[in-house]
Amino acid sequence: MEPRKHKSIIMERKKGVLTSLEAFGLKTYEQLNMGYFPSIEMPSRSTENIYYDPQVRQYILGDRKVRRNARNIRHIRPFTQLVWTALFSRELTSQRKTSTLRDVYYSAQAYEMKFKDQQESNNIITDLETVLGFSREDFNIFPEERSAVFGDLTIEYTVPGYEGKTLNLTSHPDGVMIGPALTSSEFVNTTADKVIAIEKGGLFTRFVEENVHKKFNAILVLTSGQAPRATRHFIRRLTRELDLPAYIFTDGDPWGMHIAMVIISGSANAAHLRELTTPDAKWSGVWATDIVNYKLPTDPLDEVDIKRLHELQRDPRYKDPLWQREIKIFLKIGRKAEQEAFSRYGLTYIVDEYLPAKLEETS
Amino acid sequence: MEPRKHKSIIMERKKGVLTSLEAFGLKTYEQLNMGYFPSIEMPSRSTENIYYDPQVRQYILGDRKVRRNARNIRHIRPFTQLVWTALFSRELTSQRKTSTLRDVYYSAQAYEMKFKDQQESNNIITDLETVLGFSREDFNIFPEERSAVFGDLTIEYTVPGYEGKTLNLTSHPDGVMIGPALTSSEFVNTTADKVIAIEKGGLFTRFVEENVHKKFNAILVLTSGQAPRATRHFIRRLTRELDLPAYIFTDGDPWGMHIAMVIISGSANAAHLRELTTPDAKWSGVWATDIVNYKLPTDPLDEVDIKRLHELQRDPRYKDPLWQREIKIFLKIGRKAEQEAFSRYGLTYIVDEYLPAKLEETS
Repeated sequence: MEPRKHKSIIMERKKGVLTSLEAFGLKTYEQLNMGYFPSIEMPSRSTENIYYDPQVRQYILGDRKVRRNARNIRHIRPFTQLVWTALFSRELTSQRKTSTLRDVYYSAQAYEMKFKDQQESNNIITDLETVLGFSREDFNIFPEERSAVFGDLTIEYTVPGYEGKTLNLTSHPDGVMIGPALTSSEFVNTTADKVIAIEKGGLFTRFVEENVHKKFNAILVLTSGQAPRATRHFIRRLTRELDLPAYIFTDGDPWGMHIAMVIISGSANAAHLRELTTPDAKWSGVWATDIVNYKLPTDPLDEVDIKRLHELQRDPRYKDPLWQREIKIFLKIGRKAEQEAFSRYGLTYIVDEYLPAKLEETS
Repeated sequence: MEPRKHKSIIMERKKGVLTSLEAFGLKTYEQLNMGYFPSIEMPSRSTENIYYDPQVRQYILGDRKVRRNARNIRHIRPFTQLVWTALFSRELTSQRKTSTLRDVYYSAQAYEMKFKDQQESNNIITDLETVLGFSREDFNIFPEERSAVFGDLTIEYTVPGYEGKTLNLTSHPDGVMIGPALTSSEFVNTTADKVIAIEKGGLFTRFVEENVHKKFNAILVLTSGQAPRATRHFIRRLTRELDLPAYIFTDGDPWGMHIAMVIISGSANAAHLRELTTPDAKWSGVWATDIVNYKLPTDPLDEVDIKRLHELQRDPRYKDPLWQREIKIFLKIGRKAEQEAFSRYGLTYIVDEYLPAKLEETS
């Protein structure tokens, strides 16, 4: 990869976020200045307005709009809360401080801004995402959960105190945490030619120990179960900015499938956002087919698993023949298997045999 | 700190682990060689044999013993499983590969060793801990959970591929993951004069952003809720090897109290182990007293909280006047507060005002 090719992506994005926040403020101010009650219009996020778009390969919002108008007495409260949230987000981003959903809820009290409970403040933050088309991580509001990455990628920090410093993501063999500093860093340089996402910490460590990053030229991403939004966005950036294919390895059960699917096609909750998905990423296993072919130790599907499989069968994201086939086989064999099940053939079998076979099969 | 003073602690420990595994094997072999059925004796871990020791300030096992004798037909199965677990642990440690509890369960199948379920294999691993007096992490069997550390401490890796490489724990501002590579590293050098453990990821990031590591000369440890065993052992090492005091900050509720207590005095489950506790660490907040004094936003205690507080009141680890006083105040005010509640006074209040006050109060 040519060094620094992608250097300014993050700084450009940060500018975009600030500009959009300021535009929102200016619009409100101008309405007031002209003697109007300020108002805002945004796409509705109600269930009836969420559609799966096979073109974009994710859920999107339809044409229905909701309007918040300060003239309407029932709207004054959420409108004011929205304006305050925009103000607070601007403070966070311009002062380059990070925060959490919980923190925002409590911070409101410092401004004598009232939220009934955290659900209410979370909702308003989602409103702000919808209005501006940026995700809350762009406003420096981060989740609690942290996952990790390991592989030959050099990043350059943009956070205060670390600007211009670089870090190679092989520097710590337990994995480099994916937090605000990592997700806001520029990608400088890599020799990797693929991304491999892994559901479980134990297997991630196994992959590092067995040098999967070298043997397969891969950047390894630990999702720690359902990948946090920041990690999903990070996987997307790896594939887009570095032009790398991504392969996802999960447990062989409906929950594992869905971890892969949410990385690939996102969730209905995030239908208002466009940058959390990686539609070309592949779910490489553990498939139901693998359970059969590799004669893996299994557990029986329980009632909740079976119910979930029937839900997935009807889910528009799962209409592709591969997913439908695997759901059917899960239901037919009535069994599930974990990633660790490969250890029955020895600790390194999964790296020596299974991984290369599946990378070839799904590439 | 004098560089490299503590250099060989980990290598010595690894040798100790291997020696004790080999001694166990040799003893079994000699018994067989002399024509005896092999047997093993270890302290009982049944509830009646677990005592709180105010001297050691943790739960310990009493004098009751259990004996596994291969002559007894009911003992053959657990005895064989124990010997296999020792064999597998030796393979892991000598080949320097890591594993998880789940992995061990599946790996047994590669040796045609049968475990009914994972509970059975977990139990046998605990038996091995009890027999040898080392913890499973010493046999390279690690938990899934990962937490993080940040601060001016230079470590030197001992894991394959990284031997002799050093890393300063300020290298990544999202925090450095506490996994097998970090916990098996030697401590080389630090300028820190204290350890601060923090329950929540959002606050950990806030502390890093606000330069708490510099302003307070601290090594910051994220516990991510209840601290994983590896993290508890790591905090112990920081305090012992570097001779640093430790302060723990949690939510102001019975669950936060207990996160601190388990770091300080351990759990009844680990009564057979001695190196997971930090008896001199201080719980520095959020106290019930702080909720009152700082007029924090609160939630009401629910039934489960109240039940838990009454349990803690009778728990021998909580007999110290400070803990008893705080439990009483929680019950009296009927409220609890999270660490983030300080954000009502602005995002940095917790660092600017609360932290220095509490460090002084509890040092």
